[in-house]
Amino acid sequence: MKIDLKDIDVVAFDADDTLWDNEIYFRESEKEFCGLLDGYANEEEVMRVLYEVEEANIPLFGYGVKSFAMSMLETVGRLTGETAPYALVKAVMGVARRQLMRPVTVISSVQTVLESLYGRCRLVMATKGDIIDQWRKVHLSGLEHYFDHMEIMCDKREADYARMIKVLRCNADRFLMVGNSLRSDILPVISLGGYGVHIPYHTTWMHEVVDEEISHERFCELKSIKELLVLFNI
Amino acid sequence: MKIDLKDIDVVAFDADDTLWDNEIYFRESEKEFCGLLDGYANEEEVMRVLYEVEEANIPLFGYGVKSFAMSMLETVGRLTGETAPYALVKAVMGVARRQLMRPVTVISSVQTVLESLYGRCRLVMATKGDIIDQWRKVHLSGLEHYFDHMEIMCDKREADYARMIKVLRCNADRFLMVGNSLRSDILPVISLGGYGVHIPYHTTWMHEVVDEEISHERFCELKSIKELLVLFNI
Repeated sequence: MKIDLKDIDVVAFDADDTLWDNEIYFRESEKEFCGLLDGYANEEEVMRVLYEVEEANIPLFGYGVKSFAMSMLETVGRLTGETAPYALVKAVMGVARRQLMRPVTVISSVQTVLESLYGRCRLVMATKGDIIDQWRKVHLSGLEHYFDHMEIMCDKREADYARMIKVLRCNADRFLMVGNSLRSDILPVISLGGYGVHIPYHTTWMHEVVDEEISHERFCELKSIKELLVLFNI
Repeated sequence: MKIDLKDIDVVAFDADDTLWDNEIYFRESEKEFCGLLDGYANEEEVMRVLYEVEEANIPLFGYGVKSFAMSMLETVGRLTGETAPYALVKAVMGVARRQLMRPVTVISSVQTVLESLYGRCRLVMATKGDIIDQWRKVHLSGLEHYFDHMEIMCDKREADYARMIKVLRCNADRFLMVGNSLRSDILPVISLGGYGVHIPYHTTWMHEVVDEEISHERFCELKSIKELLVLFNI
Protein backbone atom coordinates (compact mmCIF):
# COMPACT_ATOMS: atom_id res chain seq x y z
CA MET A 1 0.00 0.00 0.00
CA LYS A 2 1.15 3.54 -0.82
CA ILE A 3 -0.53 6.80 0.11
CA ASP A 4 0.10 10.03 -1.76
CA LEU A 5 0.42 12.91 0.71
CA LYS A 6 -1.36 15.09 -1.87
CA ASP A 7 -4.52 13.20 -0.87
CA ILE A 8 -4.02 13.93 2.83
CA ASP A 9 -4.59 17.20 4.74
CA VAL A 10 -3.97 16.04 8.27
CA VAL A 11 -1.82 13.26 9.69
CA ALA A 12 -2.84 12.77 13.31
CA PHE A 13 -0.84 10.80 15.83
CA ASP A 14 -2.00 9.09 18.95
CA ALA A 15 0.48 9.91 21.72
CA ASP A 16 0.72 7.19 24.39
CA ASP A 17 2.61 4.19 22.99
CA THR A 18 2.71 5.78 19.53
CA LEU A 19 4.96 8.80 20.19
CA TRP A 20 6.26 7.82 23.61
CA ASP A 21 6.19 4.88 26.02
CA ASN A 22 3.24 4.80 28.38
CA GLU A 23 1.68 1.41 28.98
CA ILE A 24 4.89 -0.01 30.43
CA TYR A 25 4.63 2.59 33.22
CA PHE A 26 1.13 1.38 34.06
CA ARG A 27 2.49 -2.18 34.12
CA GLU A 28 5.26 -1.11 36.49
CA SER A 29 2.80 0.74 38.74
CA GLU A 30 0.51 -2.30 38.76
CA LYS A 31 3.44 -4.47 39.79
CA GLU A 32 4.25 -2.12 42.65
CA PHE A 33 0.57 -2.05 43.60
CA CYS A 34 0.44 -5.86 43.69
CA GLY A 35 3.51 -5.82 45.92
CA LEU A 36 1.78 -3.44 48.34
CA LEU A 37 -1.20 -5.80 48.60
CA ASP A 38 1.01 -8.84 48.99
CA GLY A 39 -0.34 -9.82 52.40
CA TYR A 40 -3.97 -9.56 51.23
CA ALA A 41 -4.25 -11.18 47.80
CA ASN A 42 -2.07 -12.70 45.12
CA GLU A 43 -1.12 -10.83 41.99
CA GLU A 44 -3.72 -12.47 39.79
CA GLU A 45 -6.52 -11.61 42.19
CA VAL A 46 -5.32 -8.01 42.60
CA MET A 47 -5.16 -7.54 38.82
CA ARG A 48 -8.59 -9.10 38.32
CA VAL A 49 -10.28 -6.82 40.86
CA LEU A 50 -8.33 -3.74 39.74
CA TYR A 51 -9.37 -4.21 36.11
CA GLU A 52 -12.99 -4.75 37.17
CA VAL A 53 -12.94 -1.55 39.25
CA GLU A 54 -11.20 0.42 36.47
CA GLU A 55 -13.72 -0.64 33.82
CA ALA A 56 -16.61 0.27 36.12
CA ASN A 57 -15.05 3.67 36.85
CA ILE A 58 -14.30 4.79 33.28
CA PRO A 59 -17.69 6.50 32.76
CA LEU A 60 -17.26 8.54 35.95
CA PHE A 61 -13.48 9.00 36.16
CA GLY A 62 -12.31 8.71 32.55
CA TYR A 63 -8.75 7.74 31.57
CA GLY A 64 -5.35 8.59 32.98
CA VAL A 65 -3.22 8.24 36.07
CA LYS A 66 -5.53 10.01 38.53
CA SER A 67 -8.42 7.72 37.58
CA PHE A 68 -6.04 4.80 37.92
CA ALA A 69 -5.14 6.06 41.41
CA MET A 70 -8.80 6.29 42.44
CA SER A 71 -9.39 2.76 41.15
CA MET A 72 -6.35 1.42 43.00
CA LEU A 73 -7.64 3.00 46.22
CA GLU A 74 -11.04 1.41 45.73
CA THR A 75 -9.37 -1.94 45.05
CA VAL A 76 -7.45 -1.58 48.32
CA GLY A 77 -10.78 -1.33 50.11
CA ARG A 78 -12.21 -4.37 48.40
CA LEU A 79 -9.19 -6.59 48.94
CA THR A 80 -8.52 -5.64 52.56
CA GLY A 81 -12.15 -5.82 53.66
CA GLU A 82 -11.83 -2.07 54.24
CA THR A 83 -9.26 -2.61 56.99
CA ALA A 84 -6.29 -1.07 55.16
CA PRO A 85 -4.21 1.28 57.31
CA TYR A 86 -3.64 4.82 56.04
CA ALA A 87 -0.01 3.90 55.35
CA LEU A 88 -1.19 1.61 52.55
CA VAL A 89 -3.42 4.35 51.12
CA LYS A 90 -0.46 6.72 51.20
CA ALA A 91 1.79 4.18 49.50
CA VAL A 92 -0.75 3.73 46.70
CA MET A 93 -0.98 7.49 46.19
CA GLY A 94 2.82 7.46 46.03
CA VAL A 95 2.69 4.94 43.18
CA ALA A 96 0.42 7.26 41.19
CA ARG A 97 2.44 10.33 42.09
CA ARG A 98 5.67 8.73 40.89
CA GLN A 99 4.02 7.64 37.66
CA LEU A 100 3.04 11.27 37.06
CA MET A 101 6.69 12.26 37.40
CA ARG A 102 8.17 9.70 35.03
CA PRO A 103 10.52 10.86 32.33
CA VAL A 104 9.15 10.81 28.79
CA THR A 105 10.83 8.38 26.42
CA VAL A 106 10.13 9.20 22.79
CA ILE A 107 9.83 6.02 20.72
CA SER A 108 12.60 5.30 18.23
CA SER A 109 12.31 7.09 14.82
CA VAL A 110 9.38 9.28 15.90
CA GLN A 111 11.47 12.42 15.70
CA THR A 112 12.80 11.53 12.21
CA VAL A 113 9.30 10.81 10.93
CA LEU A 114 7.82 14.05 12.27
CA GLU A 115 10.76 16.00 10.90
CA SER A 116 10.23 14.45 7.45
CA LEU A 117 6.48 15.07 7.45
CA TYR A 118 6.71 18.60 8.85
CA GLY A 119 5.63 21.13 6.23
CA ARG A 120 4.16 18.49 3.88
CA CYS A 121 0.80 18.28 5.66
CA ARG A 122 -0.73 19.43 8.91
CA LEU A 123 0.41 17.36 11.89
CA VAL A 124 -1.87 16.78 14.84
CA MET A 125 -1.51 15.00 18.17
CA ALA A 126 -4.75 13.37 19.31
CA THR A 127 -4.80 11.52 22.59
CA LYS A 128 -7.02 10.47 25.46
CA GLY A 129 -5.94 10.56 29.08
CA ASP A 130 -5.50 13.14 31.73
CA ILE A 131 -5.18 16.68 30.46
CA ILE A 132 -2.40 17.91 32.73
CA ASP A 133 -0.38 14.72 32.42
CA GLN A 134 -0.61 14.68 28.63
CA TRP A 135 0.50 18.31 28.41
CA ARG A 136 3.39 17.54 30.72
CA LYS A 137 4.45 14.72 28.41
CA VAL A 138 4.13 16.86 25.27
CA HIS A 139 6.40 19.49 26.80
CA LEU A 140 8.96 16.97 27.98
CA SER A 141 8.94 15.08 24.68
CA GLY A 142 10.34 18.06 22.79
CA LEU A 143 7.90 17.26 19.95
CA GLU A 144 5.45 20.11 20.56
CA HIS A 145 6.70 22.36 17.76
CA TYR A 146 5.88 19.80 15.07
CA PHE A 147 2.16 19.94 15.75
CA ASP A 148 -0.38 22.35 14.30
CA HIS A 149 -2.87 21.16 16.84
CA MET A 150 -2.79 19.02 19.96
CA GLU A 151 -6.00 17.70 21.39
CA ILE A 152 -6.70 15.76 24.56
CA MET A 153 -9.95 13.99 23.71
CA CYS A 154 -12.43 12.83 26.37
CA ASP A 155 -12.83 9.60 24.43
CA LYS A 156 -11.97 8.32 20.96
CA ARG A 157 -15.29 7.31 19.53
CA GLU A 158 -16.55 8.27 16.10
CA ALA A 159 -18.33 11.39 17.39
CA ASP A 160 -15.15 12.58 19.12
CA TYR A 161 -13.14 12.31 15.91
CA ALA A 162 -15.93 13.94 13.90
CA ARG A 163 -15.81 16.92 16.24
CA MET A 164 -12.04 17.27 16.00
CA ILE A 165 -12.02 16.91 12.20
CA LYS A 166 -14.64 19.67 11.99
CA VAL A 167 -12.53 22.03 14.11
CA LEU A 168 -9.57 21.28 11.85
CA ARG A 169 -11.73 22.15 8.80
CA CYS A 170 -10.57 18.96 7.14
CA ASN A 171 -12.58 16.42 5.17
CA ALA A 172 -12.69 13.02 6.82
CA ASP A 173 -11.43 11.39 3.61
CA ARG A 174 -8.28 13.52 3.82
CA PHE A 175 -7.64 12.65 7.47
CA LEU A 176 -5.16 9.95 8.44
CA MET A 177 -4.74 8.63 11.96
CA VAL A 178 -1.67 6.76 13.22
CA GLY A 179 -1.93 4.82 16.47
CA ASN A 180 -1.38 1.65 18.44
CA SER A 181 -4.99 0.95 19.41
CA LEU A 182 -7.32 -0.58 16.83
CA ARG A 183 -10.27 0.22 19.04
CA SER A 184 -9.46 3.87 19.75
CA ASP A 185 -7.26 5.04 16.88
CA ILE A 186 -8.26 3.03 13.84
CA LEU A 187 -11.83 1.69 13.75
CA PRO A 188 -13.68 4.98 14.43
CA VAL A 189 -11.57 6.87 11.88
CA ILE A 190 -12.08 4.30 9.13
CA SER A 191 -15.76 4.31 9.90
CA LEU A 192 -15.83 8.09 9.32
CA GLY A 193 -14.17 7.65 5.91
CA GLY A 194 -10.60 8.45 6.96
CA TYR A 195 -7.37 6.46 6.83
CA GLY A 196 -6.08 4.34 9.70
CA VAL A 197 -2.47 3.24 10.14
CA HIS A 198 -1.98 0.77 12.94
CA ILE A 199 1.41 0.43 14.61
CA PRO A 200 1.14 -2.15 17.39
CA TYR A 201 3.02 -1.57 20.64
CA HIS A 202 4.41 -4.55 22.51
CA THR A 203 2.01 -4.06 25.43
CA THR A 204 -1.70 -3.26 25.16
CA TRP A 205 -4.10 -2.44 27.99
CA MET A 206 -6.83 -5.07 28.13
CA HIS A 207 -9.46 -2.36 27.66
CA GLU A 208 -8.09 -1.51 24.19
CA VAL A 209 -7.80 -5.05 22.85
CA VAL A 210 -9.79 -5.85 19.70
CA ASP A 211 -9.95 -9.40 18.42
CA GLU A 212 -11.20 -8.82 14.92
CA GLU A 213 -9.02 -8.84 11.80
CA ILE A 214 -9.31 -5.65 9.80
CA SER A 215 -9.16 -5.61 6.05
CA HIS A 216 -9.99 -2.30 4.44
CA GLU A 217 -8.65 -0.24 1.55
CA ARG A 218 -7.95 2.71 3.87
CA PHE A 219 -6.28 0.60 6.55
CA CYS A 220 -2.79 -0.73 6.92
CA GLU A 221 -0.57 -2.08 9.66
CA LEU A 222 3.10 -1.18 10.04
CA LYS A 223 5.79 -2.74 12.20
CA SER A 224 7.30 0.57 13.23
CA ILE A 225 6.61 4.27 12.77
CA LYS A 226 9.64 4.49 10.50
CA GLU A 227 7.70 2.62 7.80
CA LEU A 228 5.35 5.62 7.51
CA LEU A 229 7.96 7.23 5.28
CA VAL A 230 7.83 4.22 2.95
CA LEU A 231 4.03 4.32 3.01
CA PHE A 232 4.11 7.98 1.98
CA ASN A 233 6.95 7.41 -0.46
CA ILE A 234 9.26 10.01 1.07
CA MET B 1 -19.40 50.50 26.48
CA LYS B 2 -20.80 48.95 23.30
CA ILE B 3 -19.20 46.35 21.08
CA ASP B 4 -20.20 45.87 17.47
CA LEU B 5 -20.40 42.13 16.68
CA LYS B 6 -19.03 42.98 13.22
CA ASP B 7 -15.70 43.49 14.98
CA ILE B 8 -15.81 40.10 16.66
CA ASP B 9 -15.21 36.63 15.14
CA VAL B 10 -15.38 34.47 18.23
CA VAL B 11 -17.21 34.89 21.52
CA ALA B 12 -15.78 32.36 23.95
CA PHE B 13 -17.39 31.43 27.25
CA ASP B 14 -15.80 30.04 30.34
CA ALA B 15 -18.02 27.21 31.60
CA ASP B 16 -17.82 26.72 35.39
CA ASP B 17 -19.70 29.54 37.14
CA THR B 18 -20.25 31.34 33.84
CA LEU B 19 -22.58 28.88 32.05
CA TRP B 20 -23.44 26.66 35.01
CA ASP B 21 -22.97 26.51 38.78
CA ASN B 22 -19.77 24.84 39.93
CA GLU B 23 -17.98 26.47 42.82
CA ILE B 24 -20.94 25.98 45.16
CA TYR B 25 -20.52 22.21 44.73
CA PHE B 26 -16.89 22.46 45.81
CA ARG B 27 -18.03 24.48 48.81
CA GLU B 28 -20.59 21.80 49.67
CA SER B 29 -18.02 19.03 49.28
CA GLU B 30 -15.58 20.95 51.47
CA LYS B 31 -18.29 21.28 54.11
CA GLU B 32 -18.89 17.53 54.03
CA PHE B 33 -15.14 16.95 54.16
CA CYS B 34 -14.80 19.17 57.23
CA GLY B 35 -17.62 17.18 58.83
CA LEU B 36 -15.76 13.92 58.20
CA LEU B 37 -12.65 15.29 59.92
CA ASP B 38 -14.64 16.70 62.82
CA GLY B 39 -12.86 14.63 65.48
CA TYR B 40 -9.42 15.59 64.18
CA ALA B 41 -9.42 19.31 63.40
CA ASN B 42 -11.79 22.25 63.27
CA GLU B 43 -13.18 23.59 60.01
CA GLU B 44 -10.74 26.47 59.76
CA GLU B 45 -7.75 24.16 60.19
CA VAL B 46 -9.09 21.63 57.69
CA MET B 47 -9.66 24.34 55.08
CA ARG B 48 -6.25 25.86 55.66
CA VAL B 49 -4.41 22.56 55.17
CA LEU B 50 -6.63 21.50 52.25
CA TYR B 51 -5.95 24.72 50.36
CA GLU B 52 -2.23 24.42 51.03
CA VAL B 53 -2.22 20.84 49.72
CA GLU B 54 -4.34 21.78 46.69
CA GLU B 55 -2.07 24.66 45.69
CA ALA B 56 0.99 22.43 46.01
CA ASN B 57 -0.65 19.72 43.91
CA ILE B 58 -1.85 21.86 40.98
CA PRO B 59 1.37 21.43 38.94
CA LEU B 60 1.17 17.63 39.26
CA PHE B 61 -2.58 16.98 39.42
CA GLY B 62 -4.11 19.98 37.64
CA TYR B 63 -7.69 21.14 38.21
CA GLY B 64 -10.96 19.34 38.72
CA VAL B 65 -12.72 16.98 41.07
CA LYS B 66 -10.26 14.07 40.87
CA SER B 67 -7.38 16.37 41.83
CA PHE B 68 -9.56 17.71 44.61
CA ALA B 69 -10.15 14.12 45.77
CA MET B 70 -6.41 13.35 45.81
CA SER B 71 -5.77 16.53 47.80
CA MET B 72 -8.52 15.70 50.30
CA LEU B 73 -6.99 12.25 50.80
CA GLU B 74 -3.57 13.77 51.42
CA THR B 75 -5.12 16.24 53.86
CA VAL B 76 -6.69 13.32 55.72
CA GLY B 77 -3.20 11.90 56.23
CA ARG B 78 -1.81 15.17 57.49
CA LEU B 79 -4.63 15.92 59.91
CA THR B 80 -4.96 12.43 61.36
CA GLY B 81 -1.23 11.85 61.75
CA GLU B 82 -1.69 9.10 59.16
CA THR B 83 -3.91 7.11 61.49
CA ALA B 84 -7.15 7.49 59.50
CA PRO B 85 -9.10 4.24 59.13
CA TYR B 86 -10.00 3.11 55.60
CA ALA B 87 -13.63 4.02 56.31
CA LEU B 88 -12.64 7.68 56.36
CA VAL B 89 -10.72 7.31 53.09
CA LYS B 90 -13.78 5.67 51.56
CA ALA B 91 -16.06 8.42 52.82
CA VAL B 92 -13.81 11.06 51.24
CA MET B 93 -13.84 9.22 47.92
CA GLY B 94 -17.61 9.16 48.25
CA VAL B 95 -17.67 12.96 48.56
CA ALA B 96 -15.75 13.29 45.27
CA ARG B 97 -17.83 10.61 43.59
CA ARG B 98 -21.07 12.35 44.48
CA GLN B 99 -19.73 15.68 43.26
CA LEU B 100 -19.01 14.03 39.91
CA MET B 101 -22.65 12.97 39.70
CA ARG B 102 -24.23 16.32 40.51
CA PRO B 103 -26.91 17.64 38.23
CA VAL B 104 -25.95 20.57 36.02
CA THR B 105 -27.72 23.84 36.73
CA VAL B 106 -27.47 26.27 33.84
CA ILE B 107 -27.21 29.85 35.09
CA SER B 108 -30.19 32.12 34.49
CA SER B 109 -30.37 33.77 31.01
CA VAL B 110 -27.44 31.74 29.58
CA GLN B 111 -29.72 29.89 27.18
CA THR B 112 -31.37 33.15 25.96
CA VAL B 113 -28.00 34.80 25.40
CA LEU B 114 -26.54 31.84 23.46
CA GLU B 115 -29.72 31.60 21.40
CA SER B 116 -29.47 35.32 20.52
CA LEU B 117 -25.79 35.15 19.61
CA TYR B 118 -26.05 31.90 17.68
CA GLY B 119 -25.40 32.50 13.98
CA ARG B 120 -24.06 36.05 14.54
CA CYS B 121 -20.51 34.95 15.41
CA ARG B 122 -18.71 31.74 16.28
CA LEU B 123 -19.40 30.56 19.80
CA VAL B 124 -16.79 28.68 21.78
CA MET B 125 -16.71 27.08 25.22
CA ALA B 126 -13.27 27.32 26.85
CA THR B 127 -12.77 25.83 30.26
CA LYS B 128 -10.20 24.29 32.58
CA GLY B 129 -10.92 21.30 34.76
CA ASP B 130 -11.19 17.60 34.35
CA ILE B 131 -11.83 16.47 30.80
CA ILE B 132 -14.43 13.77 31.46
CA ASP B 133 -16.28 15.84 34.04
CA GLN B 134 -16.45 18.90 31.80
CA TRP B 135 -17.78 16.83 28.89
CA ARG B 136 -20.37 15.29 31.20
CA LYS B 137 -21.50 18.78 32.17
CA VAL B 138 -21.63 20.02 28.56
CA HIS B 139 -23.86 17.09 27.61
CA LEU B 140 -26.15 17.52 30.61
CA SER B 141 -26.38 21.29 30.14
CA GLY B 142 -28.14 20.93 26.80
CA LEU B 143 -25.98 23.80 25.48
CA GLU B 144 -23.63 21.72 23.32
CA HIS B 145 -25.30 22.53 19.99
CA TYR B 146 -24.64 26.26 20.33
CA PHE B 147 -20.86 25.84 20.23
CA ASP B 148 -18.64 25.68 17.18
CA HIS B 149 -15.81 24.50 19.37
CA MET B 150 -15.45 23.30 22.94
CA GLU B 151 -12.04 23.12 24.50
CA ILE B 152 -10.89 21.81 27.85
CA MET B 153 -7.67 23.73 28.41
CA CYS B 154 -4.87 22.45 30.66
CA ASP B 155 -4.51 25.96 32.02
CA LYS B 156 -5.68 29.44 31.07
CA ARG B 157 -2.47 31.37 30.67
CA GLU B 158 -1.67 33.58 27.73
CA ALA B 159 0.08 30.78 25.82
CA ASP B 160 -2.95 28.51 26.24
CA TYR B 161 -5.28 31.13 24.76
CA ALA B 162 -2.81 31.90 21.98
CA ARG B 163 -2.83 28.23 20.98
CA MET B 164 -6.61 28.02 20.97
CA ILE B 165 -7.02 31.24 19.02
CA LYS B 166 -4.59 29.89 16.42
CA VAL B 167 -6.57 26.67 16.02
CA LEU B 168 -9.72 28.76 15.58
CA ARG B 169 -7.94 30.79 12.88
CA CYS B 170 -9.11 33.96 14.53
CA ASN B 171 -7.19 37.16 15.17
CA ALA B 172 -6.71 37.91 18.84
CA ASP B 173 -8.22 41.38 18.36
CA ARG B 174 -11.45 39.76 17.13
CA PHE B 175 -11.65 37.33 20.07
CA LEU B 176 -13.86 38.07 23.07
CA MET B 177 -13.83 36.03 26.26
CA VAL B 178 -16.63 35.98 28.82
CA GLY B 179 -15.94 34.57 32.27
CA ASN B 180 -16.09 34.91 36.03
CA SER B 181 -12.38 34.74 36.78
CA LEU B 182 -10.26 37.83 36.21
CA ARG B 183 -7.12 35.76 36.58
CA SER B 184 -8.06 32.97 34.18
CA ASP B 185 -10.61 34.43 31.78
CA ILE B 186 -9.83 38.10 31.45
CA LEU B 187 -6.22 39.17 32.08
CA PRO B 188 -4.49 36.75 29.67
CA VAL B 189 -6.97 37.53 26.87
CA ILE B 190 -6.62 41.30 27.22
CA SER B 191 -2.89 40.88 27.29
CA LEU B 192 -3.10 39.06 23.92
CA GLY B 193 -5.07 41.95 22.43
CA GLY B 194 -8.54 40.44 22.79
CA TYR B 195 -11.66 41.59 24.64
CA GLY B 196 -12.52 40.48 28.18
CA VAL B 197 -15.98 40.60 29.70
CA HIS B 198 -16.03 39.84 33.40
CA ILE B 199 -19.20 38.53 35.02
CA PRO B 200 -18.49 37.89 38.71
CA TYR B 201 -20.05 34.86 40.38
CA HIS B 202 -21.08 35.08 44.02
CA THR B 203 -18.39 32.58 45.09
CA THR B 204 -14.79 32.51 43.90
CA TRP B 205 -12.14 29.90 44.67
CA MET B 206 -9.27 31.53 46.58
CA HIS B 207 -6.88 30.39 43.84
CA GLU B 208 -8.66 32.57 41.26
CA VAL B 209 -8.89 35.76 43.30
CA VAL B 210 -7.22 38.86 41.85
CA ASP B 211 -7.05 42.05 43.88
CA GLU B 212 -6.19 44.59 41.23
CA GLU B 213 -8.68 46.93 39.60
CA ILE B 214 -8.77 46.63 35.84
CA SER B 215 -9.34 49.56 33.59
CA HIS B 216 -8.85 48.91 29.90
CA GLU B 217 -10.60 49.90 26.69
CA ARG B 218 -11.21 46.23 25.80
CA PHE B 219 -12.45 45.26 29.26
CA CYS B 220 -15.82 45.57 30.91
CA GLU B 221 -17.63 44.09 33.86
CA LEU B 222 -21.29 43.06 33.76
CA LYS B 223 -23.67 42.14 36.57
CA SER B 224 -25.23 39.24 34.71
CA ILE B 225 -24.77 37.42 31.42
CA LYS B 226 -28.05 38.92 30.21
CA GLU B 227 -26.31 42.28 29.88
CA LEU B 228 -24.17 40.85 27.07
CA LEU B 229 -27.10 41.52 24.75
CA VAL B 230 -27.04 45.19 25.74
CA LEU B 231 -23.27 45.30 25.29
CA PHE B 232 -23.66 43.90 21.77
CA ASN B 233 -26.71 46.04 21.07
CA ILE B 234 -29.00 43.14 20.16
